[in-house]
Amino acid sequence: MSSGIDQSGTEPKRRGRRRSGADTKAALLAAAREVFTEQGYDAATVRAIAGRAGVDPAMVNHWFGGKEGLFTAAVHIPINPAEVVPQLLVGDREQLAERLLRRFLTVWDNAEGGQFAALVRSVAANENAVGMLREFIQNVLFKRLVKTLGMDRAELRTALCGSQIVGLGMARYVIHLEPLASADHDTVVAAIAPNLQRYLTGDISGATGP
Amino acid sequence: MSSGIDQSGTEPKRRGRRRSGADTKAALLAAAREVFTEQGYDAATVRAIAGRAGVDPAMVNHWFGGKEGLFTAAVHIPINPAEVVPQLLVGDREQLAERLLRRFLTVWDNAEGGQFAALVRSVAANENAVGMLREFIQNVLFKRLVKTLGMDRAELRTALCGSQIVGLGMARYVIHLEPLASADHDTVVAAIAPNLQRYLTGDISGATGP
Repeated sequence: MSSGIDQSGTEPKRRGRRRSGADTKAALLAAAREVFTEQGYDAATVRAIAGRAGVDPAMVNHWFGGKEGLFTAAVHIPINPAEVVPQLLVGDREQLAERLLRRFLTVWDNAEGGQFAALVRSVAANENAVGMLREFIQNVLFKRLVKTLGMDRAELRTALCGSQIVGLGMARYVIHLEPLASADHDTVVAAIAPNLQRYLTGDISGATGP
Repeated sequence: MSSGIDQSGTEPKRRGRRRSGADTKAALLAAAREVFTEQGYDAATVRAIAGRAGVDPAMVNHWFGGKEGLFTAAVHIPINPAEVVPQLLVGDREQLAERLLRRFLTVWDNAEGGQFAALVRSVAANENAVGMLREFIQNVLFKRLVKTLGMDRAELRTALCGSQIVGLGMARYVIHLEPLASADHDTVVAAIAPNLQRYLTGDISGATGP
């Protein structure tokens, strides 16, 4: 098996020295982390990423369902913005922070925090992962949400939301700060959602109080 | 040079196989990370740490000025709680969050975020560093501050403060989320202090709004 070419199963017919599916996926993920970091999420194209990986652009749709899915897989955050952003925008805008928090808690708790811990390890180890996380916050998820709110200082609001969500992930899944690490979702939402909502729609210029 | 012994310079006269100052400090830091993580900050003694390092307990005072200074050096956070906690508690308690934020911004900005980035790298790489950071938040800095406020749910408030401060550090020094990464201290304080103050002294049970 070690040097042979697997011709069994339902894979499409291969010619010559074509890569296995696992190799193709790995090459696409590595190329995606480079190209998204270099060019940003919006400018990066499926064609450029596939070209860097040396595979046919159709493989991106085949393995990841498109650019959003490839980004989601490459950034280690199991939230596909193409699905999630429209869902989060349904409902009262004063409860957007609560919906956002519940979504993060659900996806991250699912793997007992392993996904978030893996994200932090990759961010600590290499600059491409830092760039991917920055893209996720600045140009993929939070910015799209903040933009639809039509508030002033959208970039600062985006960064502030990022600070609280990443901080929650660090506290709950990496540092294991009790009782936050074990708290049920209602307790976390009651404690944090008002703060996150202030970053989304509140006064962040310091003109608070009497 | 490669196998010789350097006898030049201003080092004190050595007897036998005594360690250099640098070796002693490194051994104490490594032992401190183990003992603080195993036993917690309050229970860990200078004697136990020195014993683990195989050096005289007087070396802790000599090199670090005491237990607090050793912890501060070992946790990669240049804030000595024995000095800082009393300073932060002077003044209006409704501005405690602002004083706390300015202190963190000052010490972390000083090294252009290098200290915080080193902290995150060590946390991502080993469990002792995680335990040290948890001790710093839960039992060294934040808990002491929260306790003096006499509020309910002190442990949850402590963890929430930890989430926002660590999240700010991640956003500003590791992920470099603009404009938060380059913002002056007044802008950061105006944006974040009210949220941090809510974690310290506000209603965190969800009974907000009309």
